[in-house]
Amino acid sequence: MSTPVTLTALLYGPDQTGLVARVAGWIFQRQGNILHADQHRDREAGIFFQRIEWEIAPGISANDEEKAFLEFSRNVIKMQARIADSIHRPRVALFVSKAGHCFHDLVLRWRAGDFPCEIVAVVSNHLELASVAQSYGLPFHHFPIFADTKVAGEAAQLALLNELGIELVVLARYMQVLSGDFLEKFGRPVINIHHSFLPAFAGGRPYHQAHARGVKLIGATAHYATRDLDEGPIIHQDVARVTHRHGVEDLVRKGRELEKMVLAQAVHWHLENRVLVYGNKTVVFD
Amino acid sequence: MSTPVTLTALLYGPDQTGLVARVAGWIFQRQGNILHADQHRDREAGIFFQRIEWEIAPGISANDEEKAFLEFSRNVIKMQARIADSIHRPRVALFVSKAGHCFHDLVLRWRAGDFPCEIVAVVSNHLELASVAQSYGLPFHHFPIFADTKVAGEAAQLALLNELGIELVVLARYMQVLSGDFLEKFGRPVINIHHSFLPAFAGGRPYHQAHARGVKLIGATAHYATRDLDEGPIIHQDVARVTHRHGVEDLVRKGRELEKMVLAQAVHWHLENRVLVYGNKTVVFD
Amino acid sequence: MSTPVTLTALLYGPDQTGLVARVAGWIFQRQGNILHADQHRDREAGIFFQRIEWEIAPGISANDEEKAFLEFSRNVIKMQARIADSIHRPRVALFVSKAGHCFHDLVLRWRAGDFPCEIVAVVSNHLELASVAQSYGLPFHHFPIFADTKVAGEAAQLALLNELGIELVVLARYMQVLSGDFLEKFGRPVINIHHSFLPAFAGGRPYHQAHARGVKLIGATAHYATRDLDEGPIIHQDVARVTHRHGVEDLVRKGRELEKMVLAQAVHWHLENRVLVYGNKTVVFD
Amino acid sequence: MSTPVTLTALLYGPDQTGLVARVAGWIFQRQGNILHADQHRDREAGIFFQRIEWEIAPGISANDEEKAFLEFSRNVIKMQARIADSIHRPRVALFVSKAGHCFHDLVLRWRAGDFPCEIVAVVSNHLELASVAQSYGLPFHHFPIFADTKVAGEAAQLALLNELGIELVVLARYMQVLSGDFLEKFGRPVINIHHSFLPAFAGGRPYHQAHARGVKLIGATAHYATRDLDEGPIIHQDVARVTHRHGVEDLVRKGRELEKMVLAQAVHWHLENRVLVYGNKTVVFD
Repeated sequence: MSTPVTLTALLYGPDQTGLVARVAGWIFQRQGNILHADQHRDREAGIFFQRIEWEIAPGISANDEEKAFLEFSRNVIKMQARIADSIHRPRVALFVSKAGHCFHDLVLRWRAGDFPCEIVAVVSNHLELASVAQSYGLPFHHFPIFADTKVAGEAAQLALLNELGIELVVLARYMQVLSGDFLEKFGRPVINIHHSFLPAFAGGRPYHQAHARGVKLIGATAHYATRDLDEGPIIHQDVARVTHRHGVEDLVRKGRELEKMVLAQAVHWHLENRVLVYGNKTVVFD
Repeated sequence: MSTPVTLTALLYGPDQTGLVARVAGWIFQRQGNILHADQHRDREAGIFFQRIEWEIAPGISANDEEKAFLEFSRNVIKMQARIADSIHRPRVALFVSKAGHCFHDLVLRWRAGDFPCEIVAVVSNHLELASVAQSYGLPFHHFPIFADTKVAGEAAQLALLNELGIELVVLARYMQVLSGDFLEKFGRPVINIHHSFLPAFAGGRPYHQAHARGVKLIGATAHYATRDLDEGPIIHQDVARVTHRHGVEDLVRKGRELEKMVLAQAVHWHLENRVLVYGNKTVVFD
Repeated sequence: MSTPVTLTALLYGPDQTGLVARVAGWIFQRQGNILHADQHRDREAGIFFQRIEWEIAPGISANDEEKAFLEFSRNVIKMQARIADSIHRPRVALFVSKAGHCFHDLVLRWRAGDFPCEIVAVVSNHLELASVAQSYGLPFHHFPIFADTKVAGEAAQLALLNELGIELVVLARYMQVLSGDFLEKFGRPVINIHHSFLPAFAGGRPYHQAHARGVKLIGATAHYATRDLDEGPIIHQDVARVTHRHGVEDLVRKGRELEKMVLAQAVHWHLENRVLVYGNKTVVFD
Repeated sequence: MSTPVTLTALLYGPDQTGLVARVAGWIFQRQGNILHADQHRDREAGIFFQRIEWEIAPGISANDEEKAFLEFSRNVIKMQARIADSIHRPRVALFVSKAGHCFHDLVLRWRAGDFPCEIVAVVSNHLELASVAQSYGLPFHHFPIFADTKVAGEAAQLALLNELGIELVVLARYMQVLSGDFLEKFGRPVINIHHSFLPAFAGGRPYHQAHARGVKLIGATAHYATRDLDEGPIIHQDVARVTHRHGVEDLVRKGRELEKMVLAQAVHWHLENRVLVYGNKTVVFD
């Protein structure tokens, strides 16, 4: 007997009486079995959010069920919906520059089975990580982009992402700003790790800024990349304690740990369809 | 127009297909509006758990609705259920001995509006906190219980709890073991704070034990009191870092902070009907 | 036999070879016994910092020894120094407005023996906390300061602080900006608690700002007040995790816990002479 | 001009007046320059502990200076001492079994320059990690030890460790108990990672134990291995929050993160000569 297929839907829209019952009723009626359902009401904004995960009846097509659910949510309950099934493993590209800590960490977790996805490409503006990518058996694509070649370079990157059917880009300390144009044309999520507790120390050299200000905690922030640098919806943040004993070098070293943990957690939640974006915020159903 | 009454139910029992839909359907049909619903499946044990909070239709009796829901859960879906409404504020007794930190903390939070309950009695085996209880306007009851007067003493305590209609006892560093007999006769929840990270350092003088072992973290554990001392279902735990610089006195001082925070959080969750006990564990819907 | 008197010195200045040995040698030669010594070198800036605590020989005057040490540090090793003895308990004024959580917390810790100081005055621009101050036996001073009476009001406050010999002001959620003029004339340390993780969300209504940005952690920062609001040297910071479930009200409630803990810790370190300010930063010898 | 050589000494012994001054004086007199000095008094036990790091005068032999210091501490101040210099990089063997998470983590940190040591051997009772060890260029030694071959197997391991001049063994989730005999004959430190918050859940399958007890935090503990399993001096511990949602598998997955962080930190402190063992405890000068 095969493992049952599960669907996960993320829904949101104007709050109405009976939403939980109607969604649960629709699933029940089609002989689905709800495994988890988590909902949230933003009372100030009058918005209802739900993540619901269910097993579909045996022998039924997951694709058909997904279409039916999207139709139900659009036409009957009038909610924005996104849906994913447990068969499909999203295709992911990692963007890196020179620093390898997040890259190694993500690949090792992926190989340990932590991430339900396929990492199919490593994209870089430098060559430092080419050989380790290859030692992991991952195709490495080099795009040495400079100010005057940015338009052409991004076009080439986009062509590659399209050709490979990439559904998620993870910026694993990719030290080059993606243009708003690139993000728009790609049209799919891009997760970035910023090496500070945003909104503190946005912009460049955040550990230097933190050291100069004499803060007692440093942070890292994983967020979706948007046209406005460092302003995208925050998925996850964490901090670590520092003291006067820590020079900038130490902040960088401690920060690497944070960056790895925070980025890995954000990617994990994203791949488990736990992150719902609305406006400039996220609802994380963890 | 009056604030709508909300009910909160905690349910558990053998897992069955369609439970979420059936509970949501029952509420919807009676024109209730679900505010929050959180469920959990223990797949190993095959048990389903749910916390569900909803507004009842205007003009309906909360009591009637509660009875109807309990009947539905018992007879139709065959689940264990507990229900509470937003009108009733449980009557609470604080048990204390000499140390005042948890006592002050709970009372100040209660006066700041953090705890939806009525603190109606302070019970102690010592006199140290009599005057501060009185300065808070709280009746203080002194039961100087010794080994040879324990049976009579506990009987007198029980009589007081019954007379006052106490629905929750909080042991705010009450340094005397309640007998299994007392707990059984009282028959309602008793929350205790143990000053270690259970199951490490159960029993007496846990900070001395922790210091002797040279641990690098100390802890505190809030749990429901049961016949087996320090073995009851854990509600909440937390830890704080210690170093070789901390003597036993420092552990005690740092521990006070932990005890306050951990006990207050456990009481808060209990009063918001977020804690479901099954076997010797809890499900905390936070 | 009496407890020996201990002195604690905080030193800093240009780094030179042999500083540890020279300070230790000076103390040893005068039959002092070093209990703790902690030093730090800021290699980038070429500055040496030290906190050193020692018992003076029996029968010697603490005052004379303090003067001798300050002379030694000024003239012989050319370091900036501050010194305190274990006999003197600094006189402290708490400034409050309407919110009582930090106020209660500080006073209860003080009464539990955690703070080696004398709290001798409560100063407020409101009347809300007058009766609780009195119930703790603390003199309450009301200065209802408005924009057009600020100069006169601050002058009256300064007169009181001078009259009472106040050595430390703690702003326990005092919701009024002290002018640079006031700080300069007072000339002694003023510790403030800001309800955000500075430098994020400086200025007013930080929890509203944090909620609007959708951060996943909120913070609190204790710092010395300076002429530039929210820019003074940071003593301590901490954060707590929040989610989409937390509205602004919840952030405020969670933030109160942080504010209490962070402010109490900062005051504690200050009173134990563990905080050395240089430039706009602190070295905390914890 | 060459970088100056630094020495780091760890000292302890009966407390006496003037120890800080005498040690600092000895160094000063030989034209050394103290970089850091950290000391601790265990007042209950009357023991003094110190870690002191200094640059020796240019042109002087580090070895001679080390010998002179050990003689001084033994004969003049009568303290137990251990000393290390900044030139020597200790030779380390990693012991592993099947799980690779700690192994990868340690090797990647080492390659990133975080650990001042030479990893010269990987020892395993299984073959699972042979190829990744080789891909890192690390010699892999397979000792398939069973109950009836333990004596011979450990003898062979010891012979290898001696031959390679191993100065530290790190048990990176090596799932076989080292005999007391082995530890004694090896005679050098062995760091182990236990996957629980000791002393809770000592022994086998700690995550299963933790899950059965319903704890709200899981932990990991790095300690020096001793004849008494799970009873050795604790170097570092940390915890992570778990809820009813986490099954045993999740605890294992979350635990892997903790194990990596806690073991890496302990190894780091050990290699920086920050850990002083006395009795069954450690003093960690961090």
